[in-house]
Amino acid sequence: MGTPSDPPVLADVIAAASRIAPFAHRTPVLRSRGLDEWLGVRAALKCEHLQRVGAFKYRGATNAVQLLSDADAARGVCAHSSGNHAAALALAARDRGIAAHLVMPENVSAVKLAAVRGYGAQVTLCAPTLVAREATVAEVRERTGAIEIHPYDDPRIIAGAGTAALELLDECGDLDAVVTPIGGGGLLAGTCVAVHARTPGIRIVAGEPSGADDAAQSLATGTLVPQTDPRTIADGLLTSMSARTFGIIREHVEQIVTVDDDEIVAAMRVVWQRTKQIIEPSAAVAVAAVRSAVFAPGTNVGIVLSGGNVDLDALPW
Amino acid sequence: MGTPSDPPVLADVIAAASRIAPFAHRTPVLRSRGLDEWLGVRAALKCEHLQRVGAFKYRGATNAVQLLSDADAARGVCAHSSGNHAAALALAARDRGIAAHLVMPENVSAVKLAAVRGYGAQVTLCAPTLVAREATVAEVRERTGAIEIHPYDDPRIIAGAGTAALELLDECGDLDAVVTPIGGGGLLAGTCVAVHARTPGIRIVAGEPSGADDAAQSLATGTLVPQTDPRTIADGLLTSMSARTFGIIREHVEQIVTVDDDEIVAAMRVVWQRTKQIIEPSAAVAVAAVRSAVFAPGTNVGIVLSGGNVDLDALPW
Repeated sequence: MGTPSDPPVLADVIAAASRIAPFAHRTPVLRSRGLDEWLGVRAALKCEHLQRVGAFKYRGATNAVQLLSDADAARGVCAHSSGNHAAALALAARDRGIAAHLVMPENVSAVKLAAVRGYGAQVTLCAPTLVAREATVAEVRERTGAIEIHPYDDPRIIAGAGTAALELLDECGDLDAVVTPIGGGGLLAGTCVAVHARTPGIRIVAGEPSGADDAAQSLATGTLVPQTDPRTIADGLLTSMSARTFGIIREHVEQIVTVDDDEIVAAMRVVWQRTKQIIEPSAAVAVAAVRSAVFAPGTNVGIVLSGGNVDLDALPW
Repeated sequence: MGTPSDPPVLADVIAAASRIAPFAHRTPVLRSRGLDEWLGVRAALKCEHLQRVGAFKYRGATNAVQLLSDADAARGVCAHSSGNHAAALALAARDRGIAAHLVMPENVSAVKLAAVRGYGAQVTLCAPTLVAREATVAEVRERTGAIEIHPYDDPRIIAGAGTAALELLDECGDLDAVVTPIGGGGLLAGTCVAVHARTPGIRIVAGEPSGADDAAQSLATGTLVPQTDPRTIADGLLTSMSARTFGIIREHVEQIVTVDDDEIVAAMRVVWQRTKQIIEPSAAVAVAAVRSAVFAPGTNVGIVLSGGNVDLDALPW
């Protein structure tokens, strides 16, 4: 069980699945007639909002942390993140009994801050800019010797993220398409690796906020377009792809469907009402994309519900 | 598969389980470490918010409707209800291909009204008083010849409601206690019949809003105390028990724990955050009761989450 290939291949995703099995939940796959009517397809919902820390991110973080040598692990891990990667890395580190140092922007929500601290991580707050976050994490790295774990530009993270799609395929043998949201591209790239190595004929489609549509632009132009000014309610999808994730995605993804915030909120609300599942806006992006995409009626579509961490005091309706 | 005994016994609950199996979901049982920490017990959550129409009520309504003779069924069914019984009866009737006439108060929420009409039921609106509701349903009964199905004072409904506890016991062999909310007492009475016939040693506890605590008063005094002025956010628990449900409950229930609206809302919010499951205030009453009750740490408690129908535009926080 060595370090994954770069880029990762199916064997790495399978190895990751075994590696994280003692820690991660095998999340359920739900179906809902009401949602199917609204979407016009037969949807299988892979419930990563029911994963530990409430997001698929725990899979990749656990895979990366468990792959560290004992010597590296003893140094602890660090990252900058305002979102689910912070909580995922904090819990993955606690599972292994090592230190985690998280750099979070000072405007992070109290709920997220409390969650990360609740997992025993050391939190350093900084100004809410990418420059300040990178400078602060560099300072933390230098001071503590901790090993930085990038939220998506890392083959261990990509392979870990791909395990969700592997489980989805195991449970649903008849899928015509798989849809995920795209932010930095770790989930989508891992899904590509898992799905097409198993079943090349399955269509892979992504949903992206129209206010942060760098991936759609990148796929259209064939060149990696960075995200410079994201404006969307889907706060987990603000980042740019890396060359590594884009390289995988451009090979496998048929279409990136952009959806605006109204469509995202509408999809989130329908999922809440029809399935009684709390999903976050970033997860609703994939659902909105299915509603917006042109799938033939009755198409079997697997949707990865990426996470369920929302601020209940600031709902978008 | 004849009419159940009155009061129903375990055989009736088992017969109901077979009868409703082609229609009802076998709902999952969820666990959550975060919720367990908050509750101080090991909780198994029976997810009736994931039942069809989003509430356990579908079980009893389906059992009652399927038990009708063809001649009676041809007359259609009717009831007055502002809540989940209306939707449950409407869908159960549609499943059998018969008419349903629902009398609903004119202040019913638009979402609930649309749900009932969406299942194809005829809706008659009336003034929001018990007198008006009973007079209107009498008029509907006379006009249409439809058979009235009471929401809880009916052995078919009680036996149907008990099937949820049966499934819970089948899945969790190690329960020390089972907790449900109590309103009219159909769910609790059905739970009593199923649980104690199977495993007499399991403690049966109910949660009740302190602003509608007629059942707690009834159990304390040994006399059926009617509910006259309920004031609670748990809008599914406003009604009085019947002699039939009280007769079962007084024999089996160890304790009725009353919880106030603040405790109900706190429990609802913790469930939403920790389990990502949308439950309604009436379901949260059972969770709040477990938090408030004195169970030894590590006690295995089955909690019936009775429903998940909430107005997302009027959340209590």
